[in-house]
Formats: sequence, structure tokens, C-alpha cells
Amino acid sequence: MITTETREKLARIDAFIRESVIPYEKDPRNGGHGPSQDLVDEIRAKARALGLVAPHIRADGSHVTHRETALLLRAAGYSPLGPLALNVMAPDEGNMFLLGKVATAEQKRRFLEPLVAGHTRSAFFMTEPDGGAGSDPSMMQTVARQDGNHWVIDGRKTFITGADGAACAIVMAKTDQGATMFLTALPNPAIRIDRVLDTIDSSMPGGHSVIAIEGLRLSADEVLGEVGQGFRYAQIRLAPARLTHCMRWWGTASRAHDIATHYALKRHAFGKPLIDHEGVGFMLADNEIDLKQAELMIDWCADVLDTGAAGTAESSMAKVAVSEALFRVADRCVQILGGTGVSRDTVVEQAFREIRAFRIYDGPSEVHRWSLAKRLKKQASAISGI
Amino acid sequence: MITTETREKLARIDAFIRESVIPYEKDPRNGGHGPSQDLVDEIRAKARALGLVAPHIRADGSHVTHRETALLLRAAGYSPLGPLALNVMAPDEGNMFLLGKVATAEQKRRFLEPLVAGHTRSAFFMTEPDGGAGSDPSMMQTVARQDGNHWVIDGRKTFITGADGAACAIVMAKTDQGATMFLTALPNPAIRIDRVLDTIDSSMPGGHSVIAIEGLRLSADEVLGEVGQGFRYAQIRLAPARLTHCMRWWGTASRAHDIATHYALKRHAFGKPLIDHEGVGFMLADNEIDLKQAELMIDWCADVLDTGAAGTAESSMAKVAVSEALFRVADRCVQILGGTGVSRDTVVEQAFREIRAFRIYDGPSEVHRWSLAKRLKKQASAISGI
Amino acid sequence: MITTETREKLARIDAFIRESVIPYEKDPRNGGHGPSQDLVDEIRAKARALGLVAPHIRADGSHVTHRETALLLRAAGYSPLGPLALNVMAPDEGNMFLLGKVATAEQKRRFLEPLVAGHTRSAFFMTEPDGGAGSDPSMMQTVARQDGNHWVIDGRKTFITGADGAACAIVMAKTDQGATMFLTALPNPAIRIDRVLDTIDSSMPGGHSVIAIEGLRLSADEVLGEVGQGFRYAQIRLAPARLTHCMRWWGTASRAHDIATHYALKRHAFGKPLIDHEGVGFMLADNEIDLKQAELMIDWCADVLDTGAAGTAESSMAKVAVSEALFRVADRCVQILGGTGVSRDTVVEQAFREIRAFRIYDGPSEVHRWSLAKRLKKQASAISGI
Amino acid sequence: MITTETREKLARIDAFIRESVIPYEKDPRNGGHGPSQDLVDEIRAKARALGLVAPHIRADGSHVTHRETALLLRAAGYSPLGPLALNVMAPDEGNMFLLGKVATAEQKRRFLEPLVAGHTRSAFFMTEPDGGAGSDPSMMQTVARQDGNHWVIDGRKTFITGADGAACAIVMAKTDQGATMFLTALPNPAIRIDRVLDTIDSSMPGGHSVIAIEGLRLSADEVLGEVGQGFRYAQIRLAPARLTHCMRWWGTASRAHDIATHYALKRHAFGKPLIDHEGVGFMLADNEIDLKQAELMIDWCADVLDTGAAGTAESSMAKVAVSEALFRVADRCVQILGGTGVSRDTVVEQAFREIRAFRIYDGPSEVHRWSLAKRLKKQASAISGI
Repeated sequence: MITTETREKLARIDAFIRESVIPYEKDPRNGGHGPSQDLVDEIRAKARALGLVAPHIRADGSHVTHRETALLLRAAGYSPLGPLALNVMAPDEGNMFLLGKVATAEQKRRFLEPLVAGHTRSAFFMTEPDGGAGSDPSMMQTVARQDGNHWVIDGRKTFITGADGAACAIVMAKTDQGATMFLTALPNPAIRIDRVLDTIDSSMPGGHSVIAIEGLRLSADEVLGEVGQGFRYAQIRLAPARLTHCMRWWGTASRAHDIATHYALKRHAFGKPLIDHEGVGFMLADNEIDLKQAELMIDWCADVLDTGAAGTAESSMAKVAVSEALFRVADRCVQILGGTGVSRDTVVEQAFREIRAFRIYDGPSEVHRWSLAKRLKKQASAISGI
Repeated sequence: MITTETREKLARIDAFIRESVIPYEKDPRNGGHGPSQDLVDEIRAKARALGLVAPHIRADGSHVTHRETALLLRAAGYSPLGPLALNVMAPDEGNMFLLGKVATAEQKRRFLEPLVAGHTRSAFFMTEPDGGAGSDPSMMQTVARQDGNHWVIDGRKTFITGADGAACAIVMAKTDQGATMFLTALPNPAIRIDRVLDTIDSSMPGGHSVIAIEGLRLSADEVLGEVGQGFRYAQIRLAPARLTHCMRWWGTASRAHDIATHYALKRHAFGKPLIDHEGVGFMLADNEIDLKQAELMIDWCADVLDTGAAGTAESSMAKVAVSEALFRVADRCVQILGGTGVSRDTVVEQAFREIRAFRIYDGPSEVHRWSLAKRLKKQASAISGI
Repeated sequence: MITTETREKLARIDAFIRESVIPYEKDPRNGGHGPSQDLVDEIRAKARALGLVAPHIRADGSHVTHRETALLLRAAGYSPLGPLALNVMAPDEGNMFLLGKVATAEQKRRFLEPLVAGHTRSAFFMTEPDGGAGSDPSMMQTVARQDGNHWVIDGRKTFITGADGAACAIVMAKTDQGATMFLTALPNPAIRIDRVLDTIDSSMPGGHSVIAIEGLRLSADEVLGEVGQGFRYAQIRLAPARLTHCMRWWGTASRAHDIATHYALKRHAFGKPLIDHEGVGFMLADNEIDLKQAELMIDWCADVLDTGAAGTAESSMAKVAVSEALFRVADRCVQILGGTGVSRDTVVEQAFREIRAFRIYDGPSEVHRWSLAKRLKKQASAISGI
Repeated sequence: MITTETREKLARIDAFIRESVIPYEKDPRNGGHGPSQDLVDEIRAKARALGLVAPHIRADGSHVTHRETALLLRAAGYSPLGPLALNVMAPDEGNMFLLGKVATAEQKRRFLEPLVAGHTRSAFFMTEPDGGAGSDPSMMQTVARQDGNHWVIDGRKTFITGADGAACAIVMAKTDQGATMFLTALPNPAIRIDRVLDTIDSSMPGGHSVIAIEGLRLSADEVLGEVGQGFRYAQIRLAPARLTHCMRWWGTASRAHDIATHYALKRHAFGKPLIDHEGVGFMLADNEIDLKQAELMIDWCADVLDTGAAGTAESSMAKVAVSEALFRVADRCVQILGGTGVSRDTVVEQAFREIRAFRIYDGPSEVHRWSLAKRLKKQASAISGI
């Protein structure tokens, strides 16, 4: 199921992250709103030299299986800088996936190719502030109205990752024919970044922005796919993108676990290494169990996606289970490191902050539990012989 | 990986449990110390008529893979009576596995054959009271000393499942040449059941006994395998037997979940079905996630065992994760059913009690975490590039 | 705040439980559906000889403060038989409290006096099966219709603790003038015990019954208090009765903790006493913290009740916090004792079962969280300056 | 027990925090390494004008009771800037307490008076890096050797809160006569701040520093108290200082809860306010319970300290229970706010970060559980009649 090519790539990614990416973590350019573009460019050039940019996309533009992607992206995530180096970070990875499925040949040439090559970044304009589309997409307030051959869009968006510095954006808006996606170049004077949010996480270049769209005028060929199909396309992107989040942060959590294990081996208290204290050893054992379970959930969901299924429920289950498991891992690692754990002397502190945010991004656990319960209700009438 | 034969058997087990086994759950013979032998015989006769006794053992005595066993035993566990009906309950299932690996042809003929056929029961004399062998097997107090061609065994055992009514026992004792296993017929006047413990669980025929062994005289051909290899054989039995516990109780927990889902659909409070209350719906969603994770852990560990590996660490991880997940499931089901959940009107109450005990049987979580931490310590020196 | 008299009584209760009640725990009359009446009579006679029957009710019929009651009932609960010995068990304790507030002089003479003296038992007919009154009392199906000077009651009740053997019952039914309480002698041919439920708990004499009321004809002076005030009276009984549950089970959990501590001191594994393993020592430390927090919640809520407030929200908070904390304590104790923990060799196994049921009785945690959230919503508009 | 004066002060602090301190939270001077000295001075001047600087210390230098302190400091913590405004933040509050008990009149005049007046800051040089004194103080590496009438100190310290900018330091070092405290003015060329750590929390002016002490020469009158009594003095400071941490962060967590409640009331999803979703309402109910329990633990421990007891075990219990409860509260608040919860748009994000660090500061939970288990072991032999 895993090709030799993928296995070989995995080994090279593993080595690249450890030898070439990790040393950059303490670079001063890796700061509060994420690493500078400059730093990303530098690391990515190294990945490019090794043929490791977008390693899950083949030369012909097709993707390896989701299951293989899981292997590669978990390895990439071993450093928070890894996904940036390899060009598999959010939101670009998901945007590439969606454009590969829906974009026209011309759109692909213009936007997707430089994106896959790692020369540009992109944004996904979905979430809205103040009672607009969030966990409940039906509340969308951004409107696209037709004006001859053009569309004019007005609205506000928030938490738009990577908008600052992106070369293009997928913009979701409602029209008379239903929710519709548009694909347009950035910057654009009608798309104003009101501010970049100050957030607990700091791994994503460009951070997360609040955006005002005022009289954005787009031509018909800036529609992405078909008018009125926005929610359907969102579903295409949804489960795979959600799962790649799980993959990347799994890598980071496993790194935190390795650091904590190493620390527990070297540091002594009350006459013996920390790891010989059951209070610490049990936490590390629980980490191993949580990481294994998270890995199995990712692989299971990837297998479902590889059958061609939408995987909505499966990716909800995986998102809840994985994000909560990885957070427990990160939290235990902080605890084991003590004072060092709350300082930026190791990447554990960042892992903790990023994974806390991950429990919110792509839908908080509560929204997933809510939709799983809805589905269960539908299925429950079929239960018999209990 | 799963043969057509196994898939077909699975479907038949599924139907058999629902149609023929579940109706027996409320039989008055299914009481406090487990179902009566009489009841077991009656249900098993039905299984035998369908060719479903020991369904994981082929006609030639070989076993299907552990992964296939997982499918069959999870289905069996859908009723607490299912494993008894199908002759895959503890400790017999594990004893059959071990005897298949270690017994002589003569021992197989005499003891294993009737066991596999479901005509007899067996016991495994390992755990000891009062500071003897328990979580720490090195504390074994039962002694076998050589006397000419014979062995004479003295000691005490406790928590010996199914001893009352068993046709044979595997007895672990220490000798000058190391821990040794013996296989002998029961009853035997030198093996006295002091009392059957009154325990929180009630699924196992014969219950759990406290045993006194006084001057038990065994011949050389009652040694099981080789003298001094007792701990090695215990390891052979350990991981697979531990995993079949996970399989069976998974089935029971999934049953409890189905009952709770059904109840939440039918019962109303505060103007709507319970399932429409997020407080209940979220618990059901968490059940689904826990059951899926437990299933994946079981399958993963089974795959490891199918490679021929000992799987000690993997089965420790699976035991902790699965027993704790299933307990959360059972606990939530009790909570959803409210008053009904703490009464024997459904099998949920029994599931809760059985799975609480399961968190202790085959090693409490703490002992597994302890051994996982030990292993991690050994591996930790190999961590590099973090 | 605590009188000398109460302190002195506390010391005597403490000694009585340890010296005279605990030895009865292993009496064979202390079985599956609770201790036999015979056994209760025998222990209570000993309490009576010491002046310890209903120790929280003064000679003049008045009650000591709720805060003092907390001291006495926590001590009583140190054995599951203690509350029976002292006549402070549910539902009688709550019924005595309510009758003291609402009953007529004649009702008190006839029903309350022998109850307080510990010569009779009583029942509280509230909860209903199959979509009737449960967590949501507004769903009540039992009806009392007026017929001249009499009332005729029809309906079904379930989970009626102690009905089997009770000398009187408080019956809740709806009338044209609203929910109404009745007080009547038992047995009565119009009140049929359909069955005694088989439940996970086993401390309450008479167990929990399913009841059919068919054409129960009561006279006007069998109304308790005023017609139409049933829900108001239920509120009077509610919070104090709920809190005495917390008190009694606190005692039992603290007993389980003492047993587990003692066991961890005596039993060895891997070369040292269990208590020297952090895996065990930390659980015991958490028990101490949980017990302390539970004690503080009980005392706080008792203080609120002693001001004369209804304490509905406070007793909801206490019920959730205390029942969940005590369950964690009991669960840890089972775990520490291992195999012994799931057997009836100590009272820990019973503590675990009883406290699991306690998480349901008097409203499952979810119902309390639901009502607390409702209250929060009302209060939230008042939040300012945040 | 609470004087009218304290009650009145409490009301004034409450109003001051809401009206005058909270508006400063978004001041740009309130940044990554804590608020600037400039900002602290500005807010404190306002507190001084209202007579609210060090409100728990009376004009004669004596302290109000610990129980009263709890009221005042919980109110102060309602804003993370509150304790700075009122001069009751760590480490100064604890240092003032200790100096009040141990310093000479001259030391008080020189160091304590300006500290209490809120004109200077102080530091407490205890924790060491790399295997020195941390959770286990016996590992102390900093050495003071006698040289005539002077002492010469060498060593390294880490996580020294507020060192950068402090006017004085209490320095712990080991001598031939045992651990000893010194009190000396800062800055001093022999005390070098190697770096200020980049930490997850950001409320403390000066942040947390790594310090090198090289040939620090101190006179005999720079000894604090008596030579060799360092650990005893550390104990005097320990429990009260630990408890004031609990008080302050309780205030911050209660603020986060108010913000989350307010948000849940205003924000809608799936057709109703968030607070009407049980998934959210139950989290808020749990917050209320956790806050109440934390408050009761603080008050209980304060009462113990007010009896004059050392309160070591009680403050360990309080620290574990309160820090873990407040973290659960903060984590739930983040979750309720969703994307807003991980941004600095509200103080919830900071509360989450600060309280995560609090679970480490003054001893991680594991160290407290360890010492509680040690104590339990000593007490366990006294258990009888179980």
C-alpha cells in the first residue's frame, strides 16, 4: 500500500528535518507571528535542492494516497518549521488539493503551479466575524452579486491564515444560486487586511488576519468551479485538509515527547533520573499510547478517504480524537520539563501553544461531537437485536 | 488478510448472538457467580449445532490469525454470554492457545481436544495471595520439589478463574531449575478450593477461587513443556490472551453503546428525545470515538502478533488503552440510562461491572505503564536529532 | 457553630461505627438487596442503647444545623451499615425532615414519631417509569382525582427505595389544583409492588421497587400539607436530602481510602510497599484532595441551607462535585487493591458500586449541569465591567 | 472573621480593577515579557492615590489575616494587571511577608519599606539550573564561603522572576552551617543576568531570568536572619506565597469565566445562543463548580495558616487542586470562545497561558503529590478500625 518511492522519500524527509530544519528553530527570524518569509524561503530552497518540496504531489500533479501522505506529513511535522520547508502547511496544502480537483487548466497554470512549486502562498477566505460563518457555515454574510459578466463581493472575513503575503485567495461568498467559490490574485485594493491577530500559535507565515472585502469586482473566469457549488467544494477540501492538520501536529507532538523523554533521562530529582519516578514514567507511557492511538486514527481515516468516500464523519472523529490526544501529550511534556517546559528553550512550549489552537481550528471538538450525534440519531433507528 | 471463510463465520456469529444468545441473558440461571454450567451447556449445544464452537480454531487444530480472531471475538462479546456459547472465554481460550503451542501429543489428546470441543473447562493457576505472585511474578511462593520421578507441589493460589468445575489446570510453580508449568486433571484432593470469591463481575462460570495446594504429587509427564520454562510459556500465552480480553469486552461495550443509543432515541426529557440533548449526544459521540480507537488498537496489536513478535509492549499499550476506553463507554452508557443504567433491566449494568474488573485482570493499568516506562528508558538513549 | 453536644455525639458515633457496626459488614444477612430487616433491627438496637438513633434530631423534634448534620452523617457513613444503624439513611432521613416541616400533629404522632424512633421505615413515591416524572418532574403521570371527600389515585412509580417493608409512603400525584403530596400507611392492597429491581447498589433495606397504584382511595386528612403544593414541598425536601446523600457517601469513600492506604502500606510489589510506588502514592494523594474538596463543598452548602435559603443551585453544585469526586476516590481504591478491589473481601467493592449509583440518584450530573447553565444564563446579563 | 475594614477595601479594589485597571490591558506597553515598568508605575500611582497599594498590609506593617488576604487578592487578580497595580504580585508579596518576619529593623527600613510602598521591586534567588535546586531543594549548588567577616557567593540561578529591574534580592546559598539566606541590593556587578527567558506567561515585570553569581562579596549584616536557617525561612515564605498565587490566578480565571459566559450569551450558532447549547452550558456549569471548589480550598488553607500552623501539606493540596481547577476553567473558556479564545482580543488567552505556567511554578503537581504521599505513609500506621 505504501510504495517504495514513498518509503524512500520518507527517509529523506526524516533526515532533512533532523539535520537541516531543526537547527533553524532558534533562528531569530522565527518569531511571534510565525517565521519570516525570508526564513521560509531559505529553508525551502534547501528542500527544493533535495526535491522535497510538496513531496506528496507527483510530477504529473497527482497526489500520493492519503495514507502515504500521512507518513510524509507526520515526518514533516517533527519540526514546526518542517511543513513550511516542504510546502505542506495549511492553508496551502488544502488549497492545492482543492485546486487540483476543481480549477480550470488556466487557473492551475496561473495559481496552482507556482503554489506547488513553493514560490507563492495562498489563503482561504471562509470564516467570518460577528455572527457570520464559523462552526455553522449557513450563517455566511459575505455576498457576491452579479453585475453583468462580473461579480461584486462585499463582506468581512476573520482568522484568514496567511492572507498577509499570499499571492491568491479562494473566497467563499453567497449568491442567489448558493454559496460560491472565487479564485483571485492578491493583493487587491478591494481586499483590506484590517489587522493581523495576535494569537497563541506562531507557526504560520502571515499569521491570521481580519479582512474587509469592499466592492471586490471579479470576472466570470474568477469563479472557482461552478456557481452555487461552494459548499460541495468546501466538503472536498474539508476532510483531507482536516486530516493533514492531524498529521503535521502529530509530528510535532512526537517531537515534544522525544524531548521530554530525553529530559527525563538526563535530569535528576530526589536521587534518581526523572524517568525512574513513576509520576514521570507513567506520563511518558501515556504519551506513547496517545501517539499510537492518534497515528492509528489518522491512518484509518486516510484509508477511508482513499476509497473515495467523503469521510466527513470519520474525519470528525479523527479530528476530535487526535487533537485532544496530542494536546494531552504536549501538556504532559510541558509538565515533565517543569520550568523549562514553559520557556522557549525547547520547542515543547510552542508545541503546547500550537496544539491548543489546533483544538479550535477546523472546528472545535464540540462542533464535531454535535455532528456525530446528529448522524448517530439517524443511524439509531436501524439498530436491532440489542 | 481476512479470509472469506472468516467473513462468513463472522456473519453467522453475529446472527447467532443476536437471535439465540441474547434471549438467554435474562435466564434465571445467569446469576451472581456467573451462568450455571447447565445454562452454558444449553447455549453451547446451539453453537455446536451451527459449527460455531471455538470458531477461531480450524479443523486441523491451527488458529486463524490474531487479526481474524479479533473480528470473531468482538462479535462473540456482543453478549456477555457469547464467549461462553462459542467456547472462546477466559481462561480457556488462552489455555487452548498455550496447549496448542507447548503440550505433547498425548496431553493434547487428553486435555486439549475436549477443551476445544467445548466439553470441558480449564483453569490457569498463576496468581497468588498475600505477597505472592501477582503483578510481579517474581514473588512466586508456590514450590514444586522433585521427589524421584515425581514432583510435589505446595502453595496457595487466588483469583483462579473457573477452577470450580474445571477438568484440568495449568499450575505454575517454582523449582530449582526455575518456574515450571504443570498440567493436571481436576478435581484432585490435593487441590482444595477454599472459597469462591464474591466479585463485582459475574460472567465467568465457576467464578474466581482461592485455592490451597497441599502435597500435590505429579508425575514427570505432567510437566507442561520443559522444566524451568514457565515464565517463557507464560509470555507465549500472555499477549494473545490479554488481547482476546480486549476483543470480547469490546463487543460488550459496543452492545452497551447500542442500548444507550436506542434508549436516548426513545426516552424524552425536557421536551425532546435524550439524544437531542447535547449532554447525551456528546457522550454517545465520545463512545463512538472510544470504540473506534479501541478497535484500531486491537487490530494493530493483532497484526504485530501475527508477525510472530512477542508483542509484550504492544499488548500492554492495547490493554491500557482498550480497558480504559471501554470503561469510559460503559460508564457513559450507565449515565445515559439513569436509574435503568444501575439496574439489571439491561446488560449495561453488567457491562459496567465486568469492564471495571477487566481494568484489573491481566495486570492493572499501572503495571503496564510501569513496564512501558522501563522500556522507554532503555530506548531513550537512542533518541537523537531532537 | 458546632455545639459541644454535637462534638461529643460525633465522638460516640465514630467509636460506635468502628467498634460495633463494621463487624456486621460481613454478616451473611448483609446481602444482595441490602441488609435484612432482622440485621438492621439488631444493629439499631445497639445504637438505641447508646442514644444514637436519629442523632441529628433533638428530643423536642427539632434538627441540629445542617452543618452539624454533616459532621454526624459523614461519621455514620464510614460503614455502609452505619446510616441504617443510626436511622439516618435515605429515604427516611429526608422524609423525617419533610414531615417535621409539613405534617399535622396527628400525622406526626402516627407516622413521624415511630420513624424517628427507628421502629418503622418509610418510602417516597416520586419517580415514574416510561416517560413519567424523572429528572423532569413536569412529566408526572400519576393522577389523583377528587371523589367527594376522598381522593382516588392511579399511576405507576419506579425506583421507590425501601417500599418493600415500609410502614408509610409519601405519594406524589397531580391533581386539578397542581401536584399534591399524600401520606398514607403501608401496606395497602391498592399499592402493589410489581418487582424489586436488581440494582448495582445493595445498601438500602427493601431495595428499589416498581409500584402500581390502582384505585388508591385516600381521605382528605391523608393529604400532606396543602393540595397543590407538592412541588414546593418537594423543594423543601430536595436540597437537604440531596446533601445528606453526599454526607453519608463521603464517609464510605473515606473508609475506602483508609482501606486502600492500609493495603498500600502492607502489600509489596517490585521490591517495595505499594505506597512507595508513585503510581499508587499519587492516587492516594488525589484521594485526599478529592475528599477534602468534597467535605468543603458539603460544609459550604450546609451553611447556605442553615441561612434558610432553598440552596437549589448550591446543592446541585455540591451533588455534582461530591458524587464525581467520591466516585474517583472509590475507583482509585479499587485500582489500588487490584484483584482484592473487585472482590467483596473489603467494603471497597461495595463503596464503588454504591457511589456509582449515587451519581444517578437525586438527579444525574447532567441534569444538574443543565439547571446550573439555565441559572447562569439568567445571571449573565448582569455581568459588567469584564 | 472578616473585618469591616477589609470588606470595605474589597469593594474599593473591585471597583478600581473594573474601572481603572482593565482598560490598561490593551495598552501596547503590556507586551511579551510582561508590562513595562512605566506602565506599572502609571497604574500603581492610581492605586496609591486610592490608598490601595499593598492593601493587605496595615499601616503598622502587620498583615491582615490570610483569610482576608484571600478576599483582597482574588479581587486583585480579576485583571492580570491588578496585582501589579496593587503591589501584591509575586515574588514581592512573598518577599515582603518573609522580610516582615525575619529582617532586622535596619533591613526593613532600607529594603522592606520602599517595597511595601510600591516604589521598588525585589527578587528571590532560589531555583537553579542543570541539576541544582529545583523541586528538590537539597540539590542546591550555590555556595557561600566565609572569608573573614564577609561571605563570598558563587553559583547559578534560573527562573528568577523580576530580577531584571529589582532593587534587592534574597539569595539562597549553602554554607558549612547549612542553607542560608542573604539580602542584598541590586544591581551588583557580581550578579549577572545572562538572559531573560522567553516564557509562555507574560504578566510579571522583568520576566524570569537566568543569573550567574560570581564572587559576590557580602558583609555579615547582609545575612537575612540567622546563618543556617535558610530552609526554615523558605518554609515560612513557602505556604503563604504559594497560596497567594492561588488567590491571584483564581481572580483571573473567574474573569475568563465571566468573559466566556458573556460571549456564550451574545454569540449564536445553529439557531440559538451558544449558552443554550448544552455543550457550552455544561462547560460553564463546570467552571462555576471548579471556581467554587478552588475558592473553598483557598479559604480552608488560609484558615489553617491563620492558626499559625506551617500549612505545608494543606498548601500542597490547595496548590494542586486550585491550579488544576483553574486550568480547566481557562481551557474551557478558550474552547467556548473558539477562534477568539486563541487570540489576544480578550484576556482569556493570557489567562490560559499564565495558568499553564502556574501549574509549574512553586512546585509542579507531581512534587506536591509526592510529598503528600510521603506524609500519608507516615500517618497510615495510625489507621485503625477500618
